[in-house]
Amino acid sequence: METTEQTRAVARRYVETLNERDWSAFSALLADDVLYEMPQTGERISGRERYLQFNQEYPGDWSLTVTRLVADGRTAALTMDVTMGDAAMVGVVFFEVDGDLVRRVTDFWPEPYEPPAGREHLVERET
Amino acid sequence: METTEQTRAVARRYVETLNERDWSAFSALLADDVLYEMPQTGERISGRERYLQFNQEYPGDWSLTVTRLVADGRTAALTMDVTMGDAAMVGVVFFEVDGDLVRRVTDFWPEPYEPPAGREHLVERET
Repeated sequence: METTEQTRAVARRYVETLNERDWSAFSALLADDVLYEMPQTGERISGRERYLQFNQEYPGDWSLTVTRLVADGRTAALTMDVTMGDAAMVGVVFFEVDGDLVRRVTDFWPEPYEPPAGREHLVERET
Repeated sequence: METTEQTRAVARRYVETLNERDWSAFSALLADDVLYEMPQTGERISGRERYLQFNQEYPGDWSLTVTRLVADGRTAALTMDVTMGDAAMVGVVFFEVDGDLVRRVTDFWPEPYEPPAGREHLVERET
Protein backbone atom coordinates (compact mmCIF):
# COMPACT_ATOMS: atom_id res chain seq x y z
CA MET A 1 0.00 0.00 0.00
CA GLU A 2 1.40 3.35 -0.99
CA THR A 3 0.37 5.01 2.27
CA THR A 4 2.18 2.44 4.38
CA GLU A 5 5.34 2.68 2.29
CA GLN A 6 5.29 6.47 2.48
CA THR A 7 4.77 6.34 6.25
CA ARG A 8 7.65 3.90 6.60
CA ALA A 9 9.92 6.16 4.55
CA VAL A 10 8.97 9.22 6.62
CA ALA A 11 9.66 7.43 9.92
CA ARG A 12 13.03 6.20 8.67
CA ARG A 13 13.95 9.61 7.31
CA TYR A 14 12.99 11.23 10.62
CA VAL A 15 15.64 9.17 12.43
CA GLU A 16 18.22 9.58 9.66
CA THR A 17 17.94 13.36 9.55
CA LEU A 18 17.96 13.59 13.35
CA ASN A 19 21.03 11.39 13.47
CA GLU A 20 22.75 13.56 10.87
CA ARG A 21 21.56 16.79 12.52
CA ASP A 22 20.36 17.77 9.06
CA TRP A 23 18.00 20.38 10.47
CA SER A 24 16.54 21.62 7.21
CA ALA A 25 15.67 18.08 6.09
CA PHE A 26 14.41 17.19 9.59
CA SER A 27 12.26 20.30 9.76
CA ALA A 28 10.81 19.60 6.29
CA LEU A 29 9.36 16.33 7.65
CA LEU A 30 7.37 18.07 10.40
CA ALA A 31 3.81 19.33 10.08
CA ASP A 32 3.36 22.98 11.19
CA ASP A 33 1.37 21.80 14.18
CA VAL A 34 3.42 18.69 14.97
CA LEU A 35 2.87 17.44 18.50
CA TYR A 36 5.67 15.74 20.40
CA GLU A 37 4.85 13.94 23.61
CA MET A 38 6.81 12.09 26.27
CA PRO A 39 4.32 10.15 28.38
CA GLN A 40 6.93 9.27 31.01
CA THR A 41 7.40 12.91 32.02
CA GLY A 42 4.00 14.24 30.90
CA GLU A 43 5.79 16.77 28.67
CA ARG A 44 4.52 18.01 25.32
CA ILE A 45 5.98 20.26 22.68
CA SER A 46 3.69 21.85 20.11
CA GLY A 47 4.65 23.14 16.69
CA ARG A 48 7.49 22.72 14.25
CA GLU A 49 9.63 25.62 15.43
CA ARG A 50 9.65 24.61 19.07
CA TYR A 51 10.20 20.96 18.31
CA LEU A 52 13.08 21.76 15.97
CA GLN A 53 14.63 23.98 18.65
CA PHE A 54 14.20 21.23 21.27
CA ASN A 55 16.20 18.83 19.12
CA GLN A 56 18.82 21.41 18.16
CA GLU A 57 19.35 22.27 21.85
CA TYR A 58 19.31 18.65 23.05
CA PRO A 59 22.63 18.10 24.84
CA GLY A 60 25.10 15.31 24.11
CA ASP A 61 26.67 13.74 21.06
CA TRP A 62 23.97 11.22 20.21
CA SER A 63 23.91 8.65 17.48
CA LEU A 64 20.72 6.82 16.43
CA THR A 65 20.30 3.45 14.71
CA VAL A 66 16.86 2.04 13.84
CA THR A 67 16.51 -1.57 15.06
CA ARG A 68 12.81 -2.23 14.33
CA LEU A 69 10.35 -0.41 12.07
CA VAL A 70 6.66 -1.22 11.73
CA ALA A 71 4.47 0.92 9.45
CA ASP A 72 0.72 0.62 9.02
CA GLY A 73 -1.22 3.14 6.98
CA ARG A 74 -0.65 6.48 8.70
CA THR A 75 0.98 5.12 11.84
CA ALA A 76 4.42 3.71 12.51
CA ALA A 77 6.47 2.43 15.43
CA LEU A 78 10.19 1.94 15.74
CA THR A 79 12.92 1.09 18.18
CA MET A 80 16.35 2.61 17.97
CA ASP A 81 19.66 2.12 19.67
CA VAL A 82 20.91 5.42 21.00
CA THR A 83 24.49 5.99 22.02
CA MET A 84 25.58 9.15 23.78
CA GLY A 85 29.29 9.02 24.49
CA ASP A 86 29.74 5.81 26.49
CA ALA A 87 26.05 5.52 27.38
CA ALA A 88 23.71 3.23 25.43
CA MET A 89 19.92 3.45 25.53
CA VAL A 90 16.93 2.20 23.59
CA GLY A 91 14.29 4.61 22.35
CA VAL A 92 10.79 3.61 21.23
CA VAL A 93 8.92 6.01 18.96
CA PHE A 94 5.32 5.98 17.70
CA PHE A 95 4.38 8.22 14.76
CA GLU A 96 1.27 9.63 13.18
CA VAL A 97 2.05 10.58 9.59
CA ASP A 98 -0.02 12.44 7.01
CA GLY A 99 1.37 12.12 3.50
CA ASP A 100 5.03 13.09 3.82
CA LEU A 101 4.63 14.96 7.12
CA VAL A 102 4.93 13.83 10.72
CA ARG A 103 1.94 15.04 12.73
CA ARG A 104 2.60 13.42 16.07
CA VAL A 105 5.57 11.78 17.76
CA THR A 106 5.37 9.84 21.02
CA ASP A 107 8.67 8.85 22.60
CA PHE A 108 9.34 6.23 25.25
CA TRP A 109 12.70 5.81 26.98
CA PRO A 110 12.69 2.50 28.86
CA GLU A 111 15.53 2.25 31.39
CA PRO A 112 17.33 -0.90 32.54
CA TYR A 113 16.14 -2.33 35.86
CA GLU A 114 16.77 -5.32 38.08
CA PRO A 115 14.22 -8.10 37.61
CA PRO A 116 11.97 -8.91 40.55
CA ALA A 117 12.64 -12.16 42.39
CA GLY A 118 10.49 -15.23 41.88
CA ARG A 119 10.83 -16.03 38.20
CA GLU A 120 14.36 -17.40 38.09
CA HIS A 121 12.96 -20.88 37.35
CA LEU A 122 11.61 -19.63 34.02
CA VAL A 123 14.06 -17.09 32.69
CA GLU A 124 17.56 -16.97 31.31
CA ARG A 125 19.46 -13.75 31.73
CA GLU A 126 21.98 -12.21 29.37
CA THR A 127 25.14 -11.18 31.13
CA MET B 1 -2.87 -7.35 2.91
CA GLU B 2 -4.02 -10.56 4.42
CA THR B 3 -0.76 -11.09 6.30
CA THR B 4 -0.93 -7.69 7.97
CA GLU B 5 -4.56 -8.16 8.97
CA GLN B 6 -3.81 -11.59 10.42
CA THR B 7 -0.82 -10.21 12.32
CA ARG B 8 -2.95 -7.38 13.68
CA ALA B 9 -5.63 -9.84 14.82
CA VAL B 10 -3.05 -12.07 16.53
CA ALA B 11 -1.50 -9.14 18.41
CA ARG B 12 -4.91 -7.93 19.57
CA ARG B 13 -6.00 -11.41 20.60
CA TYR B 14 -2.75 -11.86 22.55
CA VAL B 15 -3.65 -8.92 24.78
CA GLU B 16 -7.32 -9.88 25.03
CA THR B 17 -6.64 -13.43 26.11
CA LEU B 18 -3.95 -12.30 28.55
CA ASN B 19 -6.35 -9.74 29.99
CA GLU B 20 -9.04 -12.40 30.37
CA ARG B 21 -6.54 -14.97 31.70
CA ASP B 22 -7.98 -17.30 29.07
CA TRP B 23 -4.97 -19.57 29.24
CA SER B 24 -6.02 -22.10 26.64
CA ALA B 25 -6.75 -19.39 24.08
CA PHE B 26 -3.56 -17.51 25.03
CA SER B 27 -1.46 -20.65 24.75
CA ALA B 28 -2.98 -21.46 21.34
CA LEU B 29 -1.51 -18.20 19.99
CA LEU B 30 2.06 -19.12 20.92
CA ALA B 31 4.52 -20.96 18.68
CA ASP B 32 6.16 -23.98 20.36
CA ASP B 33 9.47 -22.15 20.41
CA VAL B 34 8.12 -18.68 21.21
CA LEU B 35 10.78 -16.35 22.55
CA TYR B 36 9.89 -13.67 25.09
CA GLU B 37 12.45 -11.00 25.84
CA MET B 38 12.64 -8.04 28.19
CA PRO B 39 15.57 -5.88 27.05
CA GLN B 40 15.46 -3.73 30.20
CA THR B 41 16.40 -6.65 32.45
CA GLY B 42 18.18 -8.81 29.86
CA GLU B 43 15.75 -11.65 30.65
CA ARG B 44 14.48 -14.17 28.12
CA ILE B 45 11.98 -16.98 28.31
CA SER B 46 12.02 -19.72 25.68
CA GLY B 47 9.14 -21.97 24.73
CA ARG B 48 5.39 -22.01 25.05
CA GLU B 49 5.16 -23.93 28.33
CA ARG B 50 7.54 -21.69 30.23
CA TYR B 51 6.06 -18.51 28.83
CA LEU B 52 2.55 -19.64 29.68
CA GLN B 53 3.68 -20.47 33.23
CA PHE B 54 5.40 -17.09 33.54
CA ASN B 55 2.12 -15.34 32.76
CA GLN B 56 0.04 -17.64 34.93
CA GLU B 57 2.37 -17.02 37.88
CA TYR B 58 2.68 -13.28 37.30
CA PRO B 59 1.55 -11.61 40.52
CA GLY B 60 -1.12 -8.93 40.82
CA ASP B 61 -4.59 -8.33 39.49
CA TRP B 62 -3.69 -6.73 36.17
CA SER B 63 -5.96 -5.34 33.52
CA LEU B 64 -4.76 -4.53 29.97
CA THR B 65 -6.17 -2.11 27.39
CA VAL B 66 -4.61 -1.66 23.95
CA THR B 67 -4.07 2.03 23.16
CA ARG B 68 -2.10 1.82 19.88
CA LEU B 69 -1.68 -1.05 17.43
CA VAL B 70 0.53 -0.98 14.34
CA ALA B 71 0.79 -4.11 12.15
CA ASP B 72 3.06 -4.58 9.16
CA GLY B 73 3.38 -7.92 7.44
CA ARG B 74 4.68 -10.30 10.10
CA THR B 75 5.54 -7.66 12.70
CA ALA B 76 3.40 -5.59 15.02
CA ALA B 77 3.81 -3.04 17.78
CA LEU B 78 1.35 -1.92 20.41
CA THR B 79 1.04 0.16 23.52
CA MET B 80 -1.27 -0.80 26.34
CA ASP B 81 -2.46 0.78 29.55
CA VAL B 82 -1.90 -1.59 32.42
CA THR B 83 -3.59 -1.20 35.76
CA MET B 84 -2.63 -3.31 38.75
CA GLY B 85 -4.73 -2.35 41.72
CA ASP B 86 -4.13 1.40 42.13
CA ALA B 87 -1.00 1.40 40.00
CA ALA B 88 -1.10 2.44 36.34
CA MET B 89 1.66 1.69 33.83
CA VAL B 90 2.19 1.68 30.10
CA GLY B 91 3.53 -1.39 28.32
CA VAL B 92 5.04 -1.40 24.83
CA VAL B 93 5.12 -4.72 22.97
CA PHE B 94 6.75 -5.69 19.67
CA PHE B 95 5.69 -8.95 18.00
CA GLU B 96 6.97 -11.30 15.33
CA VAL B 97 4.05 -13.34 14.01
CA ASP B 98 3.99 -16.30 11.64
CA GLY B 99 0.50 -17.03 10.34
CA ASP B 100 -1.66 -17.24 13.43
CA LEU B 101 1.20 -17.85 15.87
CA VAL B 102 3.34 -15.49 17.90
CA ARG B 103 7.02 -16.36 17.48
CA ARG B 104 8.65 -13.56 19.42
CA VAL B 105 7.51 -10.99 21.95
CA THR B 106 9.63 -8.06 23.13
CA ASP B 107 8.28 -6.06 26.06
CA PHE B 108 9.27 -2.61 27.24
CA TRP B 109 8.08 -1.08 30.50
CA PRO B 110 8.88 2.63 30.48
CA GLU B 111 8.63 4.20 33.94
CA PRO B 112 7.71 7.80 34.78
CA TYR B 113 10.64 10.11 35.50
CA GLU B 114 11.28 13.77 36.25
CA PRO B 115 12.28 15.77 33.17
CA PRO B 116 15.78 17.22 33.12
CA ALA B 117 16.11 20.98 33.57
CA GLY B 118 16.77 23.29 30.65
CA ARG B 119 13.83 22.76 28.32
CA GLU B 120 11.08 24.53 30.24
CA HIS B 121 10.99 27.26 27.58
CA LEU B 122 9.80 24.71 25.01
CA VAL B 123 7.56 22.25 26.81
CA GLU B 124 4.18 22.19 28.44
CA ARG B 125 3.65 19.66 31.17
CA GLU B 126 0.49 17.77 32.03
CA THR B 127 -0.30 17.96 35.71
